Amino acid sequence: MTTRVAVMGSGNWGTAFAMILADAGSDVTMWARRQEVADAVNAGCNDAYLPELRLSPSVRATVDPAEALARADLVVLAVPSQTLRDNLTRWGGAIPHQAPVVSLLKGVELGTTMRMSQVIAEAADVDDDRIVVVSGPNLAHEIALRQPAAGVVACRDMGTAERVAGACATPWFRPYTDTDVIGAEVGGAAKNVVALASGMAEGMGFGDNTKATIITRGLAETTRLGLALGAHPQTFMGLAGVGDLIATCMSPLSRNHSFGVRLGRGLSVAQATAELRTTTEGVKSCESILTLAQQHDVDMPICEQVVAVIRDGHPVGEIGPRLMSRDLKAEKH
Amino acid sequence: MTTRVAVMGSGNWGTAFAMILADAGSDVTMWARRQEVADAVNAGCNDAYLPELRLSPSVRATVDPAEALARADLVVLAVPSQTLRDNLTRWGGAIPHQAPVVSLLKGVELGTTMRMSQVIAEAADVDDDRIVVVSGPNLAHEIALRQPAAGVVACRDMGTAERVAGACATPWFRPYTDTDVIGAEVGGAAKNVVALASGMAEGMGFGDNTKATIITRGLAETTRLGLALGAHPQTFMGLAGVGDLIATCMSPLSRNHSFGVRLGRGLSVAQATAELRTTTEGVKSCESILTLAQQHDVDMPICEQVVAVIRDGHPVGEIGPRLMSRDLKAEKH
Repeated sequence: MTTRVAVMGSGNWGTAFAMILADAGSDVTMWARRQEVADAVNAGCNDAYLPELRLSPSVRATVDPAEALARADLVVLAVPSQTLRDNLTRWGGAIPHQAPVVSLLKGVELGTTMRMSQVIAEAADVDDDRIVVVSGPNLAHEIALRQPAAGVVACRDMGTAERVAGACATPWFRPYTDTDVIGAEVGGAAKNVVALASGMAEGMGFGDNTKATIITRGLAETTRLGLALGAHPQTFMGLAGVGDLIATCMSPLSRNHSFGVRLGRGLSVAQATAELRTTTEGVKSCESILTLAQQHDVDMPICEQVVAVIRDGHPVGEIGPRLMSRDLKAEKH
Repeated sequence: MTTRVAVMGSGNWGTAFAMILADAGSDVTMWARRQEVADAVNAGCNDAYLPELRLSPSVRATVDPAEALARADLVVLAVPSQTLRDNLTRWGGAIPHQAPVVSLLKGVELGTTMRMSQVIAEAADVDDDRIVVVSGPNLAHEIALRQPAAGVVACRDMGTAERVAGACATPWFRPYTDTDVIGAEVGGAAKNVVALASGMAEGMGFGDNTKATIITRGLAETTRLGLALGAHPQTFMGLAGVGDLIATCMSPLSRNHSFGVRLGRGLSVAQATAELRTTTEGVKSCESILTLAQQHDVDMPICEQVVAVIRDGHPVGEIGPRLMSRDLKAEKH
């Protein structure tokens, strides 16, 4: 029997993931907030987000959340992180009670410092055994070209993770199952902050040693935060940790990276926002992540410097000397 | 009292590391095989290797190994990996008995599958407590520009590691101490093979998702090999693991990466060697690393595919489908 999937949200990652699910054999109904996006999907191309992708007829769209969710065997959430709670408050009650709920979201809720799976559990009353996080080095525009990639499908219940992995395995997308939801979420949220820092270094004219050092030490502080929140350390060595971090920090397609590059060149947050016509997840969530770290007494020097630049307007040139002049120490502590 | 350091070898990394040591306050004597290189260093610029770097007067050079080693408080080995044993056989006896011996070498000895520290112990009769490995994301040409970077200084004896770290700490180079020599060496050797694979993907036209996936799964198989050889898993999350791997796989300055790109475009090993006018460490050592893995019953699918292309001439286009069609599995196993 064909699996019916509701993909709630129709930005570029939601659309690319809908294509993965369709390639793997599911019937997909996307929910779009705007009628013109639903119409575009139904015409075979979500041209505002992924113009390069021809969608198969098994991907359809509607602006009615209840219609998308009705009879879904699997629900995928792909709305912007900071709108998740509002969205779930409006239509979360229509999520079928047996369906696994997949989060594609990467961020920490402002104000509450909750991870997205916590917001889902609270706002839509979904049991943890049904909440699944998909993460990894998955830039939507490359997924749309069906380039070989892999991701992590994490759920507290391994059986649910395996079911979802089966629903998104294709010859070019390889899902690995895992049970560490917290690790996958912390990796996904913190990588945006590290990408900002790595972008700043690039914008200041530094090369790959500097960027690799920032990425590595950023991974170390992300891991420390994850451990404090109950994650498994090995997750950070995997696709949802270092994999996603590398893709985000390497790619000119990454908005967080591009934003950081502009800050590195000396633009203010307002100027960078104007130039890119958008702000980024890392700019929004760096402060929540730092708060979360402080609540758990975790040292995150790179995140701290990013917050100093973004929130407090410190000159970007001060970051390097501050990070490099700390006391020498052992790498493992 | 000023530390006297002998740097044995005067290629680009030996020269850049000599500069770090001089910046940190040591007197450095480099040993060069060729008189013209020694003359160039003594004239203040090793122009055949690092033309961009003006050396300080505290870096001198000689073609006489005994002269370089006499009264050295610290000895740094920076010769090509596969020449290490021959070199030590010739002048290893002149290494002062109290001096820590630092290896900058990344590779596995052909034939014996020995790590460089094992070759040092055997060929120069140096005790493990005196053998130090320095590794990390340290592309010589960026070090020469004094861009911010960090590295790992690993020795079984933490006190020795700390002494060496103190001798190479500068405001722009930050050493972290560690005791895992095996992990640092395995990371340094295997990254060249992963860089070949990541380069191949780039040469075939794939983007950052694919490369990040190869890097991440390459890190996973490197970690498995390290564990089998007695390394600490956390080392692979650090500067000598993922840090060095990222810099090597990102950088156009990396020869292994560039070599892989050419293979990915369809060139044979002979053609790529001709085009780059050199072969690379990964091409030489991928087979030893695979042998080492097989001896310890470790699965290294990426290394296996690199060997299939390089040794057996398999078409590069077959790698992707072979890696992607393996059974789905859990990320941690």
